[in-house]
Amino acid sequence: MGLRVGVVGGGQLARMMIAPAVELGVEIRVLAEQPGMSAAIAATAVGDYRDAPTVLAFAQDVDVITFDHEHVPQDVLHALVDAGVAVHPGPEALQYAQDKLVMRAKLAELGVPQPEWAAVHDAAELQAFLDENGGRAIVKTPRGGYDGKGVRVVASGTDADDWFADAAGSPLLAEELVDFRRELAQQVARRPSGDMRAYPVVHTEQRDGVCAEVIAPAPESTPRLQAVAAGIGTGIAEGLGVTGMLAVELFETTDDRLLVNELAMRPHNSGHWSQDGAVTSQFEQHLRAVLDLPLGDPTPRAPWTVMVNILGGPTDGTLGDRMPAALHAHPDVKVHTYGKEPRPGRKVGHVNATGDALDDVTYDARAAAALFL
Amino acid sequence: MGLRVGVVGGGQLARMMIAPAVELGVEIRVLAEQPGMSAAIAATAVGDYRDAPTVLAFAQDVDVITFDHEHVPQDVLHALVDAGVAVHPGPEALQYAQDKLVMRAKLAELGVPQPEWAAVHDAAELQAFLDENGGRAIVKTPRGGYDGKGVRVVASGTDADDWFADAAGSPLLAEELVDFRRELAQQVARRPSGDMRAYPVVHTEQRDGVCAEVIAPAPESTPRLQAVAAGIGTGIAEGLGVTGMLAVELFETTDDRLLVNELAMRPHNSGHWSQDGAVTSQFEQHLRAVLDLPLGDPTPRAPWTVMVNILGGPTDGTLGDRMPAALHAHPDVKVHTYGKEPRPGRKVGHVNATGDALDDVTYDARAAAALFL
Repeated sequence: MGLRVGVVGGGQLARMMIAPAVELGVEIRVLAEQPGMSAAIAATAVGDYRDAPTVLAFAQDVDVITFDHEHVPQDVLHALVDAGVAVHPGPEALQYAQDKLVMRAKLAELGVPQPEWAAVHDAAELQAFLDENGGRAIVKTPRGGYDGKGVRVVASGTDADDWFADAAGSPLLAEELVDFRRELAQQVARRPSGDMRAYPVVHTEQRDGVCAEVIAPAPESTPRLQAVAAGIGTGIAEGLGVTGMLAVELFETTDDRLLVNELAMRPHNSGHWSQDGAVTSQFEQHLRAVLDLPLGDPTPRAPWTVMVNILGGPTDGTLGDRMPAALHAHPDVKVHTYGKEPRPGRKVGHVNATGDALDDVTYDARAAAALFL
Repeated sequence: MGLRVGVVGGGQLARMMIAPAVELGVEIRVLAEQPGMSAAIAATAVGDYRDAPTVLAFAQDVDVITFDHEHVPQDVLHALVDAGVAVHPGPEALQYAQDKLVMRAKLAELGVPQPEWAAVHDAAELQAFLDENGGRAIVKTPRGGYDGKGVRVVASGTDADDWFADAAGSPLLAEELVDFRRELAQQVARRPSGDMRAYPVVHTEQRDGVCAEVIAPAPESTPRLQAVAAGIGTGIAEGLGVTGMLAVELFETTDDRLLVNELAMRPHNSGHWSQDGAVTSQFEQHLRAVLDLPLGDPTPRAPWTVMVNILGGPTDGTLGDRMPAALHAHPDVKVHTYGKEPRPGRKVGHVNATGDALDDVTYDARAAAALFL
């Protein structure tokens, strides 16, 4: 059988598919937005993913098209499908990752637990939602938001007037400001043939709306919590027809409920721990899933794995300059960098530490990552 | 600091350096013998490694040159050094991997335990060696042998007349036919600055002179055995000035001695287990060593890892055709393929299985590899 994957988008998620592809013997080709991106070593084309002819040309001679991100327009996705190209995840699934209002409506239809929400068209509707939900809420632009962008906490119906103006009549998403104990993430892999594998639920630490740290598995995750989270993940993967990796960001509320925050239909920052902490990494699993190959074992390889992002990187020099000190101090920590220029707040790499004692593992990972700042 | 490695040779050892290079953030470039080789995805040049101008041109803009094999001629190696290129391992070390007579003489000088040996120039000298060593011996061509080629068991001084003729007066290597219990391999990483890390000694199963299976660590390897093997490995690495990975193939004799059989100054088949079984794989370790970066932790990640080579591959189709059945039956086995066409006896891939029970791990690895034949 053919084992040729085309990845649209040249960022770090595409880059991190390269190692398992090379090892497994999958031929990986990348359509990069520009030269010199993270996945440049596998870039066989450079072009605009919003241009159907560009993407169709790239899709020649691969067995499946998958993605580094969820921003490929529906018309381009459908052009691929109409041309007989295997696309995973497909347009139907991706629409739920592309529009948060469509996603909320679908999850409601599926009966998935989620925060109170409403589509609001103007300040009056937003004020009404605020009045029903304790006077404070989250407002999100339904499309194009990521890493905290397009998300705002509001206390008055007029706090989103600028976004209402930009939206020009189309609604914004208002969500209940959830009183949560911590944030969790559940990853599930699903094949086109329907088979699924759930990873252990993990604890994610967000800073300024950006994932900073992940502990796998989530501390004090009882079998019951694991089962409920896995059930939510597999239910969404099946209900939305996701193929490949799905990440479900969850709130664990102070009254012990799990509510769905966000979805990602691709490898996700909350799963980077699996590169060194699971039998099958999320990147290998994504390749296996989109190729409709049997899925790998998602079992952890150690009691604890902690992932810490390298956010921003050094302000004086390169990540390479910091490598000697970091590798010297932490010979057992796995360092992953993305070939990106340091810039404040930018995700330029991460480290994974694994072991038996969570305190030690956490210290190791944080200390190693700090040496790159 | 710069993290750009140039690898001369486009085979599977260069290919398996790509994954750790991409993850760590090392820019890897390969000079391949021809297009479409195992390491093609990283090939920035195609040319003859015996041609100094070709290799010198390739060496521009990299921080260090290293190798997929040990066959680069000394004049090319010295041309690189004379041009100010960092070369690891260097010409002095590589001469011992390129000529088995030079290697035997140096190991004798270092007092390293090895089989009885002699440089023999003709049938009479070979017969004299046979008379002193029980009537049977191994004869090896000092240069160019690998995977059992250039090695012959002889019982009469005239059994190597054809090789003596080819050698045109230069000597062959005669070695005692060692009465061994099993074959072991000891890997050591050494930085130019001198720091070293020893991997656990492993058991290697050879078939027709080709590595078929590796068990890591070697069963019943007492702390004493581990220490003696590690001492031989570090002694050779230091004594020969090896930089990068060194593999020492050892005989464990029926009277409990360890004798050095062969040396390899590169990642080696006996270390493929480390990709999934050690904290730091031999391929990542080699990159760190040749870049003079701090070495990683060589500790096993599980009590047992078994590596089984895929020799030859399917006679009816591709490795990809067998992937679904293999991944379905063995979701926890890690499959590595080299992008090579199946051919009888050819190394086209390997599998690694890890776990707590050696019997189960061995079964898993053998069964998975068999599905690719």
